[in-house]
Amino acid sequence: MNEKNIKLTLAYDGTRYHGWQRQKNAATLQKTIEDKLELMLRKPVTLVASGRTDAGVHALGQVCHFITSSNLTPEMIKKGLNALLPYDILIEDAAYVPLDFHARYHAKRKTYTYKILNRNAPDIFRRAFVWHIPVPLAVDRMSACLKRLEGTHDFSSFRSSGSGNQNPIRTLFLAEIQGSAGGELSFVFEGDGFLRHMVRNMVGTVIQAGLNKMDIEAFERILFAKDRRKAGVKAPARGLFLVRVTY
Amino acid sequence: MNEKNIKLTLAYDGTRYHGWQRQKNAATLQKTIEDKLELMLRKPVTLVASGRTDAGVHALGQVCHFITSSNLTPEMIKKGLNALLPYDILIEDAAYVPLDFHARYHAKRKTYTYKILNRNAPDIFRRAFVWHIPVPLAVDRMSACLKRLEGTHDFSSFRSSGSGNQNPIRTLFLAEIQGSAGGELSFVFEGDGFLRHMVRNMVGTVIQAGLNKMDIEAFERILFAKDRRKAGVKAPARGLFLVRVTY
Repeated sequence: MNEKNIKLTLAYDGTRYHGWQRQKNAATLQKTIEDKLELMLRKPVTLVASGRTDAGVHALGQVCHFITSSNLTPEMIKKGLNALLPYDILIEDAAYVPLDFHARYHAKRKTYTYKILNRNAPDIFRRAFVWHIPVPLAVDRMSACLKRLEGTHDFSSFRSSGSGNQNPIRTLFLAEIQGSAGGELSFVFEGDGFLRHMVRNMVGTVIQAGLNKMDIEAFERILFAKDRRKAGVKAPARGLFLVRVTY
Repeated sequence: MNEKNIKLTLAYDGTRYHGWQRQKNAATLQKTIEDKLELMLRKPVTLVASGRTDAGVHALGQVCHFITSSNLTPEMIKKGLNALLPYDILIEDAAYVPLDFHARYHAKRKTYTYKILNRNAPDIFRRAFVWHIPVPLAVDRMSACLKRLEGTHDFSSFRSSGSGNQNPIRTLFLAEIQGSAGGELSFVFEGDGFLRHMVRNMVGTVIQAGLNKMDIEAFERILFAKDRRKAGVKAPARGLFLVRVTY
């Protein structure tokens, strides 16, 4: 049995799925893809992703790996999966990696984008992929808040409960807004790792500053409080995209 | 009874609907909007659109009108409808118009856009709104074909059967491609009116030229043949948008 490790890079529209992770009686991305792989490889397969994404969250470049003794080449696996998978999942790349490659443990950097449509009228064609906020947002103030998040911090204030006693220290290399007021704003976060709901909690809190309900100093106090109860509500899942995982 | 005529301008994602026109036992745009209007106005209402759109076709600026004796202002009707309608229909504007205004008979010009994604990889986030053609298309040749369609012609070659014995003479003021090879191409058509499936039949035929299966002279012969059997297959509904109706 000649075992190989295959790495998949994939995009998905998370709207119809109960997140990445396999669950009983619910359509998840892991289950959907594992089932099709099992059909092709004629053996059960376990996919290990760079991290879970929650229900309704999308990906442009999620990464996962699986071990197989099949002789199908990565190119054949990519083509076969894309023929079998539903329209909302796309395998962008498949490649052999060393047997000890691990999609979660070896991830060095992740990039997330959170999309906000900041204008009066909603966009019915993008409704599943943006958070629509019709009230004008103070972009400069939000950018200043995001700047405070860059660097190495204890992000406990932006971690949802249920994430166990994981180390809450993370480093953000980048936290900035792309786009301009009155249109689509992309909040871009690049870091060495993210806690449970961390991006959505940061965005939900920064929006409070954008609505002038909080100044930059108050935002900074929330970060330093290391207490989830101080921060704002979590932004909805539909605006969040896992853009890239770097190894 | 003080009757008023109210004009609505609306956008919709046609994916879930069996077209505009009311049908028995099928979700259509007309029925969905009329039902909500009846709820608000407490009387049945008949909507008259600028024209039907087919199943799966979208609109950025469809126009319709209805006669009512209600005292609700257009602004109240717009807000109320937007609160009641499903997420894939948006009333963009509501306004009083003269009692003799007719959304179909008085339409002077219509603009349609047909969107094609011309690159190898599909875009899973736009799958309901583009026709994905992975093979490279000859954009210059297609533009030259479109140019031949401008002006006043008998468009019988591009009319689907079932459209009755309507006059097949129409004038196209504009038929051009926006965007560039290797990305999203928008085929824009502006005319004084369109026959049944005319845009989708023209696009399907022009694509044959883009695939180098037909030269510009052959395309011109199809137009002059005035015979639907000579033209290419109809492009799928999902790439088509009714952009604007001018009165």
